[in-house]
Amino acid sequence: MFVTIKDLQKSEEKAEITVAGMVHDFKDMGKFAFVSLRVADGVVQCVYNYGADVKKLKLESAVTASGEKIDDRRAPNGFEIHIKNVNVLSVPHEDAPDLIKNKSKTSMDADLKYRVVSLRNNRRRAVFALQSALVAGFRAFLSQNAFTEIFSPKIGAGSAEGGANMFKLEYFGQKAFLAQSPQFYKQMLIPVYMRVFEIAPVFRAEKHDTPRHLNEYISVDFEMGFIDSFKDICETERNMLKFTFDYIRENYPNLLSTLKIELPDIKEIPYVTFREAKEAVAAKYNRKIKDPYDLEPEEERLISQMYKEEFDTDFVFVTHYPDKKRPFYAKNDPNDEKYTLSFDLLYKGMEITTGGQRVHNYEEQYAKMERKGLAPADFESYLMLHKYGCPPHGGLGLGLERFCMKILDEANIRTTSLFPRDTARLTP
Amino acid sequence: MFVTIKDLQKSEEKAEITVAGMVHDFKDMGKFAFVSLRVADGVVQCVYNYGADVKKLKLESAVTASGEKIDDRRAPNGFEIHIKNVNVLSVPHEDAPDLIKNKSKTSMDADLKYRVVSLRNNRRRAVFALQSALVAGFRAFLSQNAFTEIFSPKIGAGSAEGGANMFKLEYFGQKAFLAQSPQFYKQMLIPVYMRVFEIAPVFRAEKHDTPRHLNEYISVDFEMGFIDSFKDICETERNMLKFTFDYIRENYPNLLSTLKIELPDIKEIPYVTFREAKEAVAAKYNRKIKDPYDLEPEEERLISQMYKEEFDTDFVFVTHYPDKKRPFYAKNDPNDEKYTLSFDLLYKGMEITTGGQRVHNYEEQYAKMERKGLAPADFESYLMLHKYGCPPHGGLGLGLERFCMKILDEANIRTTSLFPRDTARLTP
Repeated sequence: MFVTIKDLQKSEEKAEITVAGMVHDFKDMGKFAFVSLRVADGVVQCVYNYGADVKKLKLESAVTASGEKIDDRRAPNGFEIHIKNVNVLSVPHEDAPDLIKNKSKTSMDADLKYRVVSLRNNRRRAVFALQSALVAGFRAFLSQNAFTEIFSPKIGAGSAEGGANMFKLEYFGQKAFLAQSPQFYKQMLIPVYMRVFEIAPVFRAEKHDTPRHLNEYISVDFEMGFIDSFKDICETERNMLKFTFDYIRENYPNLLSTLKIELPDIKEIPYVTFREAKEAVAAKYNRKIKDPYDLEPEEERLISQMYKEEFDTDFVFVTHYPDKKRPFYAKNDPNDEKYTLSFDLLYKGMEITTGGQRVHNYEEQYAKMERKGLAPADFESYLMLHKYGCPPHGGLGLGLERFCMKILDEANIRTTSLFPRDTARLTP
Repeated sequence: MFVTIKDLQKSEEKAEITVAGMVHDFKDMGKFAFVSLRVADGVVQCVYNYGADVKKLKLESAVTASGEKIDDRRAPNGFEIHIKNVNVLSVPHEDAPDLIKNKSKTSMDADLKYRVVSLRNNRRRAVFALQSALVAGFRAFLSQNAFTEIFSPKIGAGSAEGGANMFKLEYFGQKAFLAQSPQFYKQMLIPVYMRVFEIAPVFRAEKHDTPRHLNEYISVDFEMGFIDSFKDICETERNMLKFTFDYIRENYPNLLSTLKIELPDIKEIPYVTFREAKEAVAAKYNRKIKDPYDLEPEEERLISQMYKEEFDTDFVFVTHYPDKKRPFYAKNDPNDEKYTLSFDLLYKGMEITTGGQRVHNYEEQYAKMERKGLAPADFESYLMLHKYGCPPHGGLGLGLERFCMKILDEANIRTTSLFPRDTARLTP
């Protein structure tokens, strides 16, 4: 029994096949019917015309259909199925709200409330299939490059970023937090595996409700030892993105045609320092610099616009963020201690990655914690990393939903989260 | 620069190479020294004997070493490196506690407290490399079999199992819970992708402190539509395990030799019903049946022992658990409604998987919820699945750490969790 378009495409012309799927569409034409079947990786077009036994099929019924595979270049996947027999396995209790074929415009709120139904829409289905494909590509690249996958705990006593914006919970009488990143753990595992990665949920109790923030999202994290410079991290990311886009073009052509997108062709990604970028957009777009220590969303947008106009690139690495705004584990630039050996990757006007080189020397880390007003005693386990030896290292975190949102030119990150969590939304 | 044994093994005999690693061991022999370097996938033996410039290397220093690769069958990985030059990139601030070479017996508590150090032990490193390899194998199998990877939220308003044993948290003024399984979400995505999987943390606020429970663990979950019987799920699991063990034997031979284990050769896995199994061990081992609705840990152990003795198998599917002890979404056996179309997979005396066929019909699910004392109104989003149509389906969850524990014949599950969370342990 077939469950995918991919396998059906490989089967011979005029093969007698059986396929399992949901009745996605049904058009009764009198003596025959057009039927669309939703299978594991998309929608298959069928013609159901074998005489008198054509019975009406209720939408969203689960069926197995038998018939003949007929190659047809005009059909979306290069073939259609001439159905002879249908076996109905289940019928819905009620007609679904009209969100599946999406002929009418659906509001985002209705879409999210009825996610169980709206995800059956073929484009929405493809959005999250793309997300899975991206992750598969990232993992393939990282595994080929000697990174070991890790599973770090999401409940803990402390925090990488100092405790602000963390969800608190009761843990058998102890106070605990949900991890806002695997930062400490991936660093702690550097002297064990030298290169590690984790793709897992992180939790941020940020109160702002914006089109680009989620309170729970999937973070693609990697960390690598024995780097010469933070630019090794940047170049590894560039190679990972390039590999992943190639991987998807190669393995998921149907997906890209359903989504009607082309993935970017990544070549060199330019570098610009935080200060240069800030000053350049201030000059070019005639803006005042309000916050000298961080980039406003509008500045990120303008830096991207400038690089698009001047170098025709959607990607730009902004480097050397001020020490003041980077966390205590960021390594300072020895040439100018006011800045760190860190970067953000901007893509189409938005930060999708934050990364950099970390402090690896014990005395340096101890002193930097004190300078930042933190008590080293609160970081006993973490500091064992530096105390008992570790190589120069660095890493990054990439927000999966935000990256997807920008690939798809979506305006709101909620559209690229299967079941988004924002300040108001806890269901479905 | 080399970072793995795997790549070094592929390089030519007598090649001039540079390798990056941590000084795992150093034995000064006067005019030369034996050096072990820990690299990304294990420990490399080196001889450092190029005359007068041999300098002592402090353990846990990060170095790059250049020299010649010399094939040697007696060496653990088939080669050693004759080092000519060493470049020291960092030295530890203090000597690490003596947990790395593990010559002395380390207590589990000390091991876990000093995890940052103890994981540098080569066997412990390999334990979690095996865990990653298992996950890579599972994913490869599931992807090849048309399963789509999903990312379901870990924070939510409700629960799959009814709310007991869940961690509660404050969520912007709303009451929220940590997911104890992705059950609802993977079912909700069945009519979208037909087959889905997720490998992610789950959270159980169970108060008991046993050698086989963790309060946070990695659950390997899959769910598949269009099944004829719950045995389709069992056979898919059997195939997944077989594929994964073959995959590891093929791709990670060094890992298995470090761990000194052989992976099981999976053939048929026998089935036995809950009732038959319970009665058989009661008769064979002369035990009284205390709880007719569930298996005690000792009964699981004895069922495995019986199947090992009688059929020489480490695996057995126990099927048809009583309705009384299975959750509301379990489908009852139409031949005897007191039992469900469900199973556990026992492996070496312990349950490693729970699974089964789910209710897919709306009226049936609604009625079963009411019979179990639940209010269908509390499950509005979930019931959209049944209301708006879904195929017959089922799935399972496998506990990764517990599976690893049994593969390695470890006595305590904490040894197979990178940073375990139990009722007392929140750090590191």
